[in-house]
Amino acid sequence: MTIGRPKQFNPDVALQKATYLFWQKGYEATSTTDLMKAMGLSKSSLYQTFGSKKQLFEQCVAYYGADNVTLLKKMQQEHSSPLQFLIGLFRFAIDPERNPETHLGCMMVNSACELAEVDDFKPKIRYQMDKTHSLIQESVEEAQKIGEITGQLSAKEIADYIFANLCGLRVIGRMNNNQKTLNNIIDMTFSTII
Amino acid sequence: MTIGRPKQFNPDVALQKATYLFWQKGYEATSTTDLMKAMGLSKSSLYQTFGSKKQLFEQCVAYYGADNVTLLKKMQQEHSSPLQFLIGLFRFAIDPERNPETHLGCMMVNSACELAEVDDFKPKIRYQMDKTHSLIQESVEEAQKIGEITGQLSAKEIADYIFANLCGLRVIGRMNNNQKTLNNIIDMTFSTII
Repeated sequence: MTIGRPKQFNPDVALQKATYLFWQKGYEATSTTDLMKAMGLSKSSLYQTFGSKKQLFEQCVAYYGADNVTLLKKMQQEHSSPLQFLIGLFRFAIDPERNPETHLGCMMVNSACELAEVDDFKPKIRYQMDKTHSLIQESVEEAQKIGEITGQLSAKEIADYIFANLCGLRVIGRMNNNQKTLNNIIDMTFSTII
Repeated sequence: MTIGRPKQFNPDVALQKATYLFWQKGYEATSTTDLMKAMGLSKSSLYQTFGSKKQLFEQCVAYYGADNVTLLKKMQQEHSSPLQFLIGLFRFAIDPERNPETHLGCMMVNSACELAEVDDFKPKIRYQMDKTHSLIQESVEEAQKIGEITGQLSAKEIADYIFANLCGLRVIGRMNNNQKTLNNIIDMTFSTII
């Protein structure tokens, strides 16, 4: 039973729009007015549903993180092997044709660079990054089991290296979208571990 | 000959303080009031000497870039070989004992992540990043000449890979300062090219 006037908006859609805005502009550059406009909400609806700008950002970090995990799990299923998934993940990250937001980089990498000194945000950003790291590590373990990736190093060590390189690629991709350069970095990254 | 009242402050010191503040907080989170306080300047002195916040930031990007080149050239001379310099550069980037600002990451990586969508800033950030890339590429070439680094790939390709990994390491280092993890990433990065 709904009491009072029903909400005139879909909170999920509003959250998605806020997430995209924070991803585009960063936390600090995004004003409450920008958010109200993008989400199509009055200030009171925004605050009533999502709390402060800080609280809304934390919900956006979680939204982006969950969306990312869904995408990675879908990609895991689409690829023929765990190694092909890992390489595919890197190729997808730099390919503007398949991934139109590639020029925005990764919202978690951007947030880590903008907000690592903000104690309230740091663990929340790290939590989402750790989820991606875990998915990578699982795939490394599977790839090691079937001999696709070297067993000379632990899955954690290899995942640390792959994840750091993915972060680096997202930074470079924001400054330089030369596909030959970016694909060469990917080739070199994987040549160490195959 | 000095006409009028001499300046009561050293512009280089003021610029250094502004650079450190932008590095710590990012561009957007740094207010004019923060800058006035850190630089010990009135609003009119700040604007008269450095122009707008935007113009001051551009001068800070150039200041940080020049400082970085000086540091890298010093490190090149201190190391026994070009490969040892490159490895030393990575080790220095993550070592909080020798480099107390390691937790702040690299101001250019942070700025790339925060400001790549800002057309006025992007080329200025990229220009400074390209200078570091050039210094890395020169050392790769020298290392190839003396057989320290593989000649199977071009110096540019290897420099692209090294530079991307250095950027990744700076991102990871902001979230996780586990020295074992970070040093392992460095070891794996270099194992491909030696």
